[in-house]
Amino acid sequence: MIVKEVIDSPVAACAPQSGAVPSSRSCGIASTRLDRWALARIQATVASAPIRFALWDGYELASSAGTAVATILFKNRSALFGWVWDPELNFGEGYMSGAVEIRGDLLTLLEAIYRTFASSPARPWWLWQKSNDARAARENVHHHYDLGNDFYRLWLDRDMVYTCAYFPTPDVTLEEAQIAKMDLVCRKLQLEPGERVIEAGCGWGSLALFMARQYGVTVRAFNISSAQIAFARNRAREEGLADRVEFVEDDYRHVRGTCDAFVSVGMLEHVGAPDYPTLGRVIDRTLSDRGRGLLHFIGRDQSAPLNPWIRKRIFPGAYAPTLREVFAHVLEPHAFSVLDVENLRLHYAKTLEHWRHRFHTAGDQVATMFDETFARAWQLYLAGSQAAFRTGWMQLFQVVFARAGSNAIPWIRVSG
Amino acid sequence: MIVKEVIDSPVAACAPQSGAVPSSRSCGIASTRLDRWALARIQATVASAPIRFALWDGYELASSAGTAVATILFKNRSALFGWVWDPELNFGEGYMSGAVEIRGDLLTLLEAIYRTFASSPARPWWLWQKSNDARAARENVHHHYDLGNDFYRLWLDRDMVYTCAYFPTPDVTLEEAQIAKMDLVCRKLQLEPGERVIEAGCGWGSLALFMARQYGVTVRAFNISSAQIAFARNRAREEGLADRVEFVEDDYRHVRGTCDAFVSVGMLEHVGAPDYPTLGRVIDRTLSDRGRGLLHFIGRDQSAPLNPWIRKRIFPGAYAPTLREVFAHVLEPHAFSVLDVENLRLHYAKTLEHWRHRFHTAGDQVATMFDETFARAWQLYLAGSQAAFRTGWMQLFQVVFARAGSNAIPWIRVSG
Repeated sequence: MIVKEVIDSPVAACAPQSGAVPSSRSCGIASTRLDRWALARIQATVASAPIRFALWDGYELASSAGTAVATILFKNRSALFGWVWDPELNFGEGYMSGAVEIRGDLLTLLEAIYRTFASSPARPWWLWQKSNDARAARENVHHHYDLGNDFYRLWLDRDMVYTCAYFPTPDVTLEEAQIAKMDLVCRKLQLEPGERVIEAGCGWGSLALFMARQYGVTVRAFNISSAQIAFARNRAREEGLADRVEFVEDDYRHVRGTCDAFVSVGMLEHVGAPDYPTLGRVIDRTLSDRGRGLLHFIGRDQSAPLNPWIRKRIFPGAYAPTLREVFAHVLEPHAFSVLDVENLRLHYAKTLEHWRHRFHTAGDQVATMFDETFARAWQLYLAGSQAAFRTGWMQLFQVVFARAGSNAIPWIRVSG
Repeated sequence: MIVKEVIDSPVAACAPQSGAVPSSRSCGIASTRLDRWALARIQATVASAPIRFALWDGYELASSAGTAVATILFKNRSALFGWVWDPELNFGEGYMSGAVEIRGDLLTLLEAIYRTFASSPARPWWLWQKSNDARAARENVHHHYDLGNDFYRLWLDRDMVYTCAYFPTPDVTLEEAQIAKMDLVCRKLQLEPGERVIEAGCGWGSLALFMARQYGVTVRAFNISSAQIAFARNRAREEGLADRVEFVEDDYRHVRGTCDAFVSVGMLEHVGAPDYPTLGRVIDRTLSDRGRGLLHFIGRDQSAPLNPWIRKRIFPGAYAPTLREVFAHVLEPHAFSVLDVENLRLHYAKTLEHWRHRFHTAGDQVATMFDETFARAWQLYLAGSQAAFRTGWMQLFQVVFARAGSNAIPWIRVSG
């Protein structure tokens, strides 16, 4: 607990005379043998990564793996020992507060670190996460998605799509790629005019409106973020689609009715593994005999908890599952038949590249809207995500499924 | 045991005076109340299927579910009670021996039965199967694949491909569809000239030769069927590909060397679940850092043992897994990253339709080559398989994977 409190006040442990300005190079006291031992211990955990490490008084450890791509500078003792204590949490805490500074390119550094990580051993999927009940889900979603539509408008695409885009070629614009993604989802679901779609977790409503507009379906779209639902309803009215797209401010657990297609893009990450059986029952309760489903989610090659800093600062309650976990706990209990799986992780890396570029351009506005610490946290989150998808630390899966035995399935699957 | 012995001699239990001709309508004795009770009990197990049931003396039970699509006639008491005792095994035994006769279309009847089956509850994957060690594997394979190349030539395509084909449109020929399948596999693997491929379970060598001929790769292809290996080596010599395609008569466990692509089409079914970890280690040992892999196999939506008659008469040691089982025991332990999954079950139903048609045409030759019982067993196996894929009782999965973190993966996946 002491470590955590110290980290929350990044320069407190350095020395009172150093003041409260975390950006100063040195906090005024010389590093000790213990400090240097700690730095060497940190370096040993990522020994194969070409990174230089430095302390507040100018002491440096050269890269142990060739020419360094960047330097990690600890600006005070609490940041240093915070990393030793819990590197996964406190790298983010230190970067966000300014007590850890990166000299060089953040993305390159993060990719180098991810590449050194050996794959995590599998852990029981239920051990390290508590259930997200409806109230917890609401708080978790509020934490992230109710930051204000103006904030997201600064760096998302025109349609406000906050999930992995699909780039037919790497050089199309983010706007084009988000439209291509929505179209790909519709084609994978084989939507026909007049069909009924349920969308669980609809963001600002882009996909629901796209499906109604381009494919002539009716949509009931669920979301527990008030800010997003208000925005989406307004768009439906403006586009004259309010009679065909209903935005419901409610939890996915309360989805009722029947549908020909069940779609969820970027929500499973927030459901949490203990509630996968609930999601499976919701789909089973709503999908018609000839129905198709599509789940689009961030996943992993092997089971592992999400980075604790991301869970603390960015996505409380979030979890990125393996395909096996989703099949075992969502689809298999109801004998849904998997038709098609596509891994789009390089498309998510590209999406994040666009978001980061726009976020960087809007840097001053973000800092004004919130503060510098918030901006740094989000820069780290976006760069860390891009690095994770580039290095294969994270995956992006689209899974298409149908009722067992249904022959209302495509003869040939769709492609980009 | 008594039941089994009786079944092996189908008419013995009826009455000595009935002779040994199973095709006679009646075995000469009247059905009792017990026989009729047994028949009603059988009907109750498939009550929602539109099927008529009949006994040897003309007694009939009308369909309990609308107009009957076919009649199942028990020609003697042992066939009747064999079904009660173990329907999954003894339907096949009775049909094969002639003691159970189908009046109407066999395929339609089988589809009706499959549709009535509720999904099997999941069972522990290791409970109902013993490991196929190398000797058992050889015996199992010999049982099926060493029936003689002349037999398979009667009803397979020109290239002797004995796995699910890929029909770009449902009306292309089987020959075209098998070539399209081989090409699809090569494109999914992104084969480049000069790359090294290992194929585990190569049948008569069609895919190995296709890859070398059309994609310029070198192939080491493994198979434990002597008849198939001899045939394949001969083809390689005839085509002038013997320097680039090596056919090795050995078990997949003994695969050595390094490859850029690991491919296995229709072998996983014979590996058996207890040996999945072994297969995973073999792939891990052989695949290069930028390597890709493809597994093509018959699977299921939910865990269940293969039909016991199929295991007894057609495929000893075979098992059709769920995706979850393959991921859990083959891919995840080595952090292989799943890139792409496609379910081609309707293509397997279409493939089987072609095989059945050709098998039917070659009926007299099959009966001459073996005997009538063998021909009936194979007719049932082919019709049962077609019905299983049509009704979604079985699936056909192609899974593409790569090393964790490898970016030598396609930007856009291939399609038909």
